[in-house]
Amino acid sequence: MSRTGSRQTDHLYQKIAADIAARISAGQYKPGQRIPSIRHFASVFRCNKLTVQKAFGLLRRQGIIENIVGSGSYVRYPHKIGSTGEIFDFKTDYIEVGFFPYRQVQAIYNDLFVKEKSGALAPVDVKGEPGLIRALSRLYHVPAESIIIISGAQQGLDLIAKLFAFKITDAILFEDPTYPGAISLFKARHFVAMDGQGPRLDQLDSKLHSRIQLFYSMPAVHNPTGQSYSPRVKEAISRRARKHDFYIIEDDYLSEFARQPLPRFIDLVPENTIYIKSLSQTTVAGLRLGFMVVPPKLYDKVLYAKFTSDIASNGLVQKFFARFIEKGYYQQHLAAIGKKITYRRKRLIRLIDSFDFLDCHGHSQQGYSLWISSKRKLDITNAPWRRGSEFSFDPNYRDYFRLSFMHLSDDHFEQGLDYLAKILRYLD
Amino acid sequence: MSRTGSRQTDHLYQKIAADIAARISAGQYKPGQRIPSIRHFASVFRCNKLTVQKAFGLLRRQGIIENIVGSGSYVRYPHKIGSTGEIFDFKTDYIEVGFFPYRQVQAIYNDLFVKEKSGALAPVDVKGEPGLIRALSRLYHVPAESIIIISGAQQGLDLIAKLFAFKITDAILFEDPTYPGAISLFKARHFVAMDGQGPRLDQLDSKLHSRIQLFYSMPAVHNPTGQSYSPRVKEAISRRARKHDFYIIEDDYLSEFARQPLPRFIDLVPENTIYIKSLSQTTVAGLRLGFMVVPPKLYDKVLYAKFTSDIASNGLVQKFFARFIEKGYYQQHLAAIGKKITYRRKRLIRLIDSFDFLDCHGHSQQGYSLWISSKRKLDITNAPWRRGSEFSFDPNYRDYFRLSFMHLSDDHFEQGLDYLAKILRYLD
Repeated sequence: MSRTGSRQTDHLYQKIAADIAARISAGQYKPGQRIPSIRHFASVFRCNKLTVQKAFGLLRRQGIIENIVGSGSYVRYPHKIGSTGEIFDFKTDYIEVGFFPYRQVQAIYNDLFVKEKSGALAPVDVKGEPGLIRALSRLYHVPAESIIIISGAQQGLDLIAKLFAFKITDAILFEDPTYPGAISLFKARHFVAMDGQGPRLDQLDSKLHSRIQLFYSMPAVHNPTGQSYSPRVKEAISRRARKHDFYIIEDDYLSEFARQPLPRFIDLVPENTIYIKSLSQTTVAGLRLGFMVVPPKLYDKVLYAKFTSDIASNGLVQKFFARFIEKGYYQQHLAAIGKKITYRRKRLIRLIDSFDFLDCHGHSQQGYSLWISSKRKLDITNAPWRRGSEFSFDPNYRDYFRLSFMHLSDDHFEQGLDYLAKILRYLD
Repeated sequence: MSRTGSRQTDHLYQKIAADIAARISAGQYKPGQRIPSIRHFASVFRCNKLTVQKAFGLLRRQGIIENIVGSGSYVRYPHKIGSTGEIFDFKTDYIEVGFFPYRQVQAIYNDLFVKEKSGALAPVDVKGEPGLIRALSRLYHVPAESIIIISGAQQGLDLIAKLFAFKITDAILFEDPTYPGAISLFKARHFVAMDGQGPRLDQLDSKLHSRIQLFYSMPAVHNPTGQSYSPRVKEAISRRARKHDFYIIEDDYLSEFARQPLPRFIDLVPENTIYIKSLSQTTVAGLRLGFMVVPPKLYDKVLYAKFTSDIASNGLVQKFFARFIEKGYYQQHLAAIGKKITYRRKRLIRLIDSFDFLDCHGHSQQGYSLWISSKRKLDITNAPWRRGSEFSFDPNYRDYFRLSFMHLSDDHFEQGLDYLAKILRYLD
């Protein structure tokens, strides 16, 4: 039979699978990369979504792609782990969206339109919705008049980058390790190593020359180490901020899940602190909401930068979140998530402790990630975790990794534990 | 009676009014400035909102503050117009929020949570929600793979400012007059005068030196002039963009309300066009949504700038708007608004034409503003319109003004016409 003839008798889904496989071999989609959605291919091949789904199934069985639960289909690395064609995401440090009480969310949105009618869609001030500002001021114990609502913590960093635009690279100190998004935004170059207490003061002092204007810091539930600064170190840094007149960017990553609340920089040196709080990190990634607390000297400048960035953050979302706090739902959500974190951390630590080559540093970590060092090389390419090298240029962190454990549903967490155990046994 | 004694017998609302009046005399709130809300003062004075409302009423009767409908209370200029203590807002170029079909909006939000459950809150790709991208691609006839969803047109400009950060001031040409938000963001310095056909080509040519990389343009329903470029001028500029290799920033301000659709720069020279579309401008200011169409050469850079700015635009709002388009509601809304624009423009032109010292330039304007020149000095300080000097540094535009007429409800529009007539008679 001729090639053409055989092709014509092939099932459409097999042709589609072959086409996608060819694109992968040609390098259009690379190992570890997400391939477009079923919907996308259905439109490309002008066929039913079910047909593309069948093609994806075939590719999965052939070990060409794999499914990351809740994320999509990825080109599989040549090196295989497991046999289900699925991997579990311990990379993403957001909370699984299914834990967010969407029925309460739905009720609030509905209520907003009933009570406020078209006013629900009215524009808000650049600085944010007054109701949300009041609610956050009470909940987070920060002065309402210093709050600016932003579209997520990343925007807060971006506004600061705008304010200090010129030569910022040489004007800002970072912790080492630190948040990769800050490294790339600020093109970070100057680092202060962390120890068990926080940033090392001797290193901080040696780098505090006259050009330093900013210190980017995650003092409560640090990312990725999960540590919180000791009160002594926090006070020492506060004194230095006052003396050398630099600003501390206090990125409050996850203090809601810290074991005990400690005074923050915004409490100790409010004049020198730019406080940034992500509200997506404690709720769902899709919320895209956060706030800043800005000292009076910088307030107007930050507000202007916010205005030129996007006029104001979405008002409806702000109104929603104000009510979500007022009704106590946010606080209930934090409490429920806190319990899950405790349970899951215990399970994960038990697993990590069963491997002699791994160390998660005295169980003093907080938040929903674990920062783990390994005595063996972590030379697998399709690791489901984030590697140390993403958080630090220091080669000592090359065999560290961060496991974030709240982005999986309860079922997937259980399966994910088995999956992790399999990978770790392979490395052992 | 002693001063103290008399104070004690005063009513609380009178004390509050006196306190606010004292703040105004002391310059804490300046003429034309909005004073904080009733709610704010209620919390400051620890009293009932009704009490503050009474204080505001007293201040209004005393001619100290005035109410801008739908906006708040403002410190009144010493120079008074009218007697009601109210002025009407012909400044704001957004559509009155009450015209937006909030019941349909409510139904869609509700439906989203019913159908997608917690998935409604899932995060989206940096480039935007696929469903919205598809819907916009179809509706606006632009390639889906070039679309990036943004949080309003201002963010689009901001992303471009980031891309061309260094020396952008000398790399970008502007129309004269042009949008004030662009002037301040880009610190505009180089302008090309507009005539009835669009930017003057002789001026454009004389300014197209080697450093020019961008031309910021509003070719359809230009802000503030309400003109659209002639096809001949558009083609001439397209040729120059190709030849001199600069990018046209095509800010599509309100082409939905143009009398006839003309080929856009994105159609004529897609390789050299960065198209920006505000979706708030055609719906409600509070939507904070828009999109860009970016040529392949710049796409990844713009996407990265978007990521470092705010990760992604709010997913729920994007999902809402995708459905709003899919159900045809957006198109219905545009049609309904289009009719209102036609009616109101006619009424306003009739008013303007009744004054010999005013000219609105042959009725060729489109969109929901009127750009009017005056033979008399416009020396009133509390004008309800935007002055020519906000759109241009050219002294010839000093006695121009822009009347935006869609930010008022139907009732307020009628009252606003009388109010305008009163001011114009005063100037005549």
